[in-house]
Amino acid sequence: MTALRRDFHKYAETGWFEVRTASIVARKLTELGYDVLAGRDVCLEEARMGVPDQEELDRQYERACRQGADPEFAPRLRDGFTGVVGILRCGRGPVVAMRFDMDALGVIEETNDSHRPARDGFGSVNGGCMHACGHDGHTAMGLGVAKVLMELREALHGTVKLIFQPAEEGVRGAKSIVEHGHLDDVDFFLGSHVTGMQEASGEYDLIPGAGGSLATTKLDVIYRGKAAHAGGSPEEGHNVMLSIATAILNLYAIPRHSGGETRVNVGTVQAGSGRNVIADEGKMEIEVRGSSTEVNDFVETYARRILQSAADMHGTICQMKVVGSAYSLESDRELMERICRVCRDKMHMRVNPKLRMKAGGSEDISYMMKRVQDRGGQASFMRIMARTAGPGHSRQFDFDEHMMVNGVKAFCGVAYDILGTSREM
Amino acid sequence: MTALRRDFHKYAETGWFEVRTASIVARKLTELGYDVLAGRDVCLEEARMGVPDQEELDRQYERACRQGADPEFAPRLRDGFTGVVGILRCGRGPVVAMRFDMDALGVIEETNDSHRPARDGFGSVNGGCMHACGHDGHTAMGLGVAKVLMELREALHGTVKLIFQPAEEGVRGAKSIVEHGHLDDVDFFLGSHVTGMQEASGEYDLIPGAGGSLATTKLDVIYRGKAAHAGGSPEEGHNVMLSIATAILNLYAIPRHSGGETRVNVGTVQAGSGRNVIADEGKMEIEVRGSSTEVNDFVETYARRILQSAADMHGTICQMKVVGSAYSLESDRELMERICRVCRDKMHMRVNPKLRMKAGGSEDISYMMKRVQDRGGQASFMRIMARTAGPGHSRQFDFDEHMMVNGVKAFCGVAYDILGTSREM
Amino acid sequence: MTALRRDFHKYAETGWFEVRTASIVARKLTELGYDVLAGRDVCLEEARMGVPDQEELDRQYERACRQGADPEFAPRLRDGFTGVVGILRCGRGPVVAMRFDMDALGVIEETNDSHRPARDGFGSVNGGCMHACGHDGHTAMGLGVAKVLMELREALHGTVKLIFQPAEEGVRGAKSIVEHGHLDDVDFFLGSHVTGMQEASGEYDLIPGAGGSLATTKLDVIYRGKAAHAGGSPEEGHNVMLSIATAILNLYAIPRHSGGETRVNVGTVQAGSGRNVIADEGKMEIEVRGSSTEVNDFVETYARRILQSAADMHGTICQMKVVGSAYSLESDRELMERICRVCRDKMHMRVNPKLRMKAGGSEDISYMMKRVQDRGGQASFMRIMARTAGPGHSRQFDFDEHMMVNGVKAFCGVAYDILGTSREM
Amino acid sequence: MTALRRDFHKYAETGWFEVRTASIVARKLTELGYDVLAGRDVCLEEARMGVPDQEELDRQYERACRQGADPEFAPRLRDGFTGVVGILRCGRGPVVAMRFDMDALGVIEETNDSHRPARDGFGSVNGGCMHACGHDGHTAMGLGVAKVLMELREALHGTVKLIFQPAEEGVRGAKSIVEHGHLDDVDFFLGSHVTGMQEASGEYDLIPGAGGSLATTKLDVIYRGKAAHAGGSPEEGHNVMLSIATAILNLYAIPRHSGGETRVNVGTVQAGSGRNVIADEGKMEIEVRGSSTEVNDFVETYARRILQSAADMHGTICQMKVVGSAYSLESDRELMERICRVCRDKMHMRVNPKLRMKAGGSEDISYMMKRVQDRGGQASFMRIMARTAGPGHSRQFDFDEHMMVNGVKAFCGVAYDILGTSREM
Repeated sequence: MTALRRDFHKYAETGWFEVRTASIVARKLTELGYDVLAGRDVCLEEARMGVPDQEELDRQYERACRQGADPEFAPRLRDGFTGVVGILRCGRGPVVAMRFDMDALGVIEETNDSHRPARDGFGSVNGGCMHACGHDGHTAMGLGVAKVLMELREALHGTVKLIFQPAEEGVRGAKSIVEHGHLDDVDFFLGSHVTGMQEASGEYDLIPGAGGSLATTKLDVIYRGKAAHAGGSPEEGHNVMLSIATAILNLYAIPRHSGGETRVNVGTVQAGSGRNVIADEGKMEIEVRGSSTEVNDFVETYARRILQSAADMHGTICQMKVVGSAYSLESDRELMERICRVCRDKMHMRVNPKLRMKAGGSEDISYMMKRVQDRGGQASFMRIMARTAGPGHSRQFDFDEHMMVNGVKAFCGVAYDILGTSREM
Repeated sequence: MTALRRDFHKYAETGWFEVRTASIVARKLTELGYDVLAGRDVCLEEARMGVPDQEELDRQYERACRQGADPEFAPRLRDGFTGVVGILRCGRGPVVAMRFDMDALGVIEETNDSHRPARDGFGSVNGGCMHACGHDGHTAMGLGVAKVLMELREALHGTVKLIFQPAEEGVRGAKSIVEHGHLDDVDFFLGSHVTGMQEASGEYDLIPGAGGSLATTKLDVIYRGKAAHAGGSPEEGHNVMLSIATAILNLYAIPRHSGGETRVNVGTVQAGSGRNVIADEGKMEIEVRGSSTEVNDFVETYARRILQSAADMHGTICQMKVVGSAYSLESDRELMERICRVCRDKMHMRVNPKLRMKAGGSEDISYMMKRVQDRGGQASFMRIMARTAGPGHSRQFDFDEHMMVNGVKAFCGVAYDILGTSREM
Repeated sequence: MTALRRDFHKYAETGWFEVRTASIVARKLTELGYDVLAGRDVCLEEARMGVPDQEELDRQYERACRQGADPEFAPRLRDGFTGVVGILRCGRGPVVAMRFDMDALGVIEETNDSHRPARDGFGSVNGGCMHACGHDGHTAMGLGVAKVLMELREALHGTVKLIFQPAEEGVRGAKSIVEHGHLDDVDFFLGSHVTGMQEASGEYDLIPGAGGSLATTKLDVIYRGKAAHAGGSPEEGHNVMLSIATAILNLYAIPRHSGGETRVNVGTVQAGSGRNVIADEGKMEIEVRGSSTEVNDFVETYARRILQSAADMHGTICQMKVVGSAYSLESDRELMERICRVCRDKMHMRVNPKLRMKAGGSEDISYMMKRVQDRGGQASFMRIMARTAGPGHSRQFDFDEHMMVNGVKAFCGVAYDILGTSREM
Repeated sequence: MTALRRDFHKYAETGWFEVRTASIVARKLTELGYDVLAGRDVCLEEARMGVPDQEELDRQYERACRQGADPEFAPRLRDGFTGVVGILRCGRGPVVAMRFDMDALGVIEETNDSHRPARDGFGSVNGGCMHACGHDGHTAMGLGVAKVLMELREALHGTVKLIFQPAEEGVRGAKSIVEHGHLDDVDFFLGSHVTGMQEASGEYDLIPGAGGSLATTKLDVIYRGKAAHAGGSPEEGHNVMLSIATAILNLYAIPRHSGGETRVNVGTVQAGSGRNVIADEGKMEIEVRGSSTEVNDFVETYARRILQSAADMHGTICQMKVVGSAYSLESDRELMERICRVCRDKMHMRVNPKLRMKAGGSEDISYMMKRVQDRGGQASFMRIMARTAGPGHSRQFDFDEHMMVNGVKAFCGVAYDILGTSREM
């Protein structure tokens, strides 16, 4: 598992480009005996969000091939269809699904020896790509889970689905898997994220649920206006600069909500073609968040109104495109309690069932959880705790690889509790 | 004329409240032998702009009566119909019209002895009302012109129309007289304004035309939103404060125009009902200007779009009401040259035919001039120069009363040149 | 108690004007046998916030006298010193203090018969003043508490302090009492507010603590610039309109805080002197809030920086004045548990010890609680539940007067538990 | 001259990169017999504005060498020192200097056959560089002037200085030549620009002076703040996005000026590093203009205050760098009249001495003119009229090459009138 994690770390691939990673996952699952779906059988084309342009997809595909992508699976994964699902059918019984995410971040990795991946030779060789959020560990752990459950298969009654998801960063990938229908028959659903131990007050191996995860919508916004010479005929321009400045101030000024926390951010802006020209084109990358899906909807609706009105105000045109979105995470109490019980009592892990995490991040696994819950199933997120170096998303991020062992224990323990107990009973 | 000017100065009345002033004008014109129209026969009700509310009209009417308004004319002038027209018919011939404005400003007059009206006992007795723009002189001068032309009537061939206009400040009154039709038969039209000599480089008595007068539109803007408790449920409000702040910044940011000067001003704002309440109502008094009517239209159209979009942006409602407007002043070259010739050669006045005045103010006499010109007549403005104390609209403003003599000379000289020459020829 | 409440309701007095109310309180306390402090003996002059101007103080004082203020106490309470403290000394033992607030709101009361005060003839006779927040009930309840404790005095060991506070609305009055030192010797401190039963999910008589109360700072902000003619020389102005609009947008755009909820509101703005004048003066009433005192400090500090920079930006001057402030309410767990035990077990009230209230409001009793806690004492707030009509601060607000009985039970029960038990032991 | 112009057009070089163009100029001047200064002998290092970075300078130098830069002069012109001065000394007498600018624009040239340079095979081979403002013609014309004056040298008494200036676009280059002292001994100074005939109402060959040229300052503005996770801890960021948006709106809202026209433009903005990160760095390219140097100073000073205050407001840091500037052009009446007389009477050109051009552009020749005038000399700009295709700075721009003949006539005619007449007298 450690070797795999380090291999994935070294050949880090960002969202929708995970051809090498996914092809290796597909190969391993096949070898273990899973039924494997990949590419267009996993991700519904039109439900994917934030897919890069074709030129970039082609370039990254070539790199993946050069870096050892599995030649059988790679062609099926190209063009932004990097999802893989492994299925293990063990007769009648409930369907238990688990999600593992595979993508890296656009971060330049630390090369200093104080950073273990650099020191031990598995730092990213793909410039500007880095597993700074632990998904390399999630993927390796998923393969560990695959192996254990395959070994236990004689004792299981029901179906195991292992979902390896692309493009979790930017909350872009989960929806396409959900819309393909892969969650429609799921009775129990589990997902996880590695979490730095310092965020909990005490030493724990696992915290069930994901208090503090926010619903979110990511929007790319493009303004188009009309250029004019800023000295000679400023009145002829339709100035996107004024639309953008007005939008920015008003976006941050969206009212606070008594129903819970909100967030708004204009992360990047790029506009204009020259100093003495009235700007005729501009682009912003923005995001909104809310402690619940309803609160997030309030902020998104308000933001869209601001963006459109700021265009109308200056005679410019505004295009908005959702490039990512997630609901808030709502874990089912019953399943959370089962996780506690199994992990604490059977797996002898240190579990804290009550800890409230500080809010901030978002997860598009929420799409999967909501689909399962909407159809009567139970879903829960788990925080797998670990000693970490550097904050998440920083170039110094690393984690204690023992975390993966705890993850495998939790996933397999709960799956066994569900699928194995039926026989015992 | 001086006594009259001082009387008008002492009992200063602001726009649409000039009952006392106008009734005295009507009385004098009647005594001189003019046919006199007053009130609703002068101002078309629905074309009046910026009329105060009825309660205030009633209160000011009572004051005018107490302060010696003519009992015959006052009742016809009440309720915001304070225009007077005096007509002198002298057989066949062209129609020459002249405009004199009568209203004061909402300024608190200086009471220090350095201010001549205070020193000589004709400072305004109406608190917060002051003739700080010289219209008291214009009105007295108009009655001087009436007297002279009546004396010359045997020598005249045609018709003289003396128009005493209310509510020039805020450019609110002229349109109602134009829309009533009083300018429709006019062949030659003259108007004037007293101007401080220091604004010209040299000593002159008169400058024909009015270079620098700007077209303008005055708007009252009301925003209505929805109140909410700012602590308990800020998301339930529709906050006019955000609409207003967004509108203000964007209004001032309207593009400069290569076709000429522009101005924008948000003069007053008043909004909100309490510190801890999301503001649900607000009002702004704004104005836009342009060196030409076209440039002013550009700014007004842009301003309206901003005001509406700032409402849309925050779910508030915006009402805009035009409470004053004026075109730019375009004097006819031929008439300007006639004024020069008459005043310089026959009246021995010091005339500067070429001086460009700095831009800034606006005049709703432009409505009258445009109507005359649109129907084929000629119109010109004249600046009657005078030594002045204090800038226009300041509480120290005063002017050398000899200006009125020059004004009478110019108006009567030109009128005689038009109406008298036909006989001589 | 009901008669008293209705009397206070009918003669509603807003903050720092409570001369009639406070004088009646002082009279009653005196008659009951309390040692009574009033006026300058209660409120430290320089620690009062948001005191109206002297002219208004004089006018309201006259009204209070006309409406039956007690002639002995009224003179001591005038000029904005409307606090009263009643002290009952029962030998050695702890000091128990309780706070009752007395001021009304600037709300126009409903006169329709659907509103009980209107129907039953105790609607406010003071136009624009209304007890729309239940302080009339608090005051009456405080006198009820005074009566009961006096009757029990033989059984008490220690000191009772009943603090009748002015100007709670706008969080202006508590600080002046704290700074005078009245809380310095207090061992146990209690305060309360009536709360609508619909805010709890279920029927309860009392909820200890005050989850959701926010720390807050109220600021009056004045901008001063330089006037200029908006048409003639706009460049000569220092435009407060631009400072204000920039400040408003940026105030609402202050970052959300991961440490808890925040609020910002610009409740009112008033600026400018005329449509065609660059505005040279403006005023805003604003408030900030935070779920903790630290979070509120973050917002206040940021707001002050915005307000100052918006002045610098346009060459205007900014003055900020704190006219109210409160900490977040932190009730002591031990005292809250005592309240629960006493009220539930001994007083047979329906108590909900865990209910989290939605955040929103603020209370300056926090000054008193903090002082007690800082010196080692215990303090707790209590929500006395009642059926209510209309939301708090609305013109239809009313409450079931039986609430006052529950309030008296809670205050006296706990006081007896503290002061009476020592003898029993 | 046409062949030269087309050669310069084909190998278009933008500001401070004109190594090929300037080296050919230096070569030709040397061959004609001029004393030639080049590189650091022309441009004072520290007075150059807006010089690109060294890497780009190196890359462009290589290209110039590959494209036929003169091997003798190129090395002296590298590293952003692309000025050339040719001097012709003809004994005692006045010094007459003339300015010709050489740089192209960052415009992608039209490749359609409707565009003559494309059709006739001299379209720019340097992608993204195009002579879209006619400086290719100016340079060729300057060499034409050099040839004629050399032929006339026997008849001249005094000194001719031909200044070939780099980096006029962005008003970056003139200052460095002035500060080197090349204008300090000049008695008469001439410069010109080709102007589209449609901008004049009528067919003219030349208009003396340059009415409508604006003073300007070009600023690069950098904001630096502090990054933070937009979801996890927004309060820890110092958000440059808020500084930038506030600055943009307020920059456009700088007051209009009664002293003349103003312009403000934020041409480009680029800020932020990722959607979910509080932006910690941003850059803007802005410019201000004014009809006079004083008016431009007003706008620049105000803009700087806004930029700084917008930083203070959000705890960010603002750096401003002047990367270009020009005064307004003030041609001397006496020299303008001489140009008229010479061109009309002796050269038989069609001259319009009075036409007012619409304002808009800026020219850093103003630095040279001002230096000459400050030291007692006379300076004038000339508009050489031509039929043009496409507006200036557009990808379709082209001009009738006969313009160059008129230019040579005007420059040489006036020079001869000054330097030749002294002998005749």
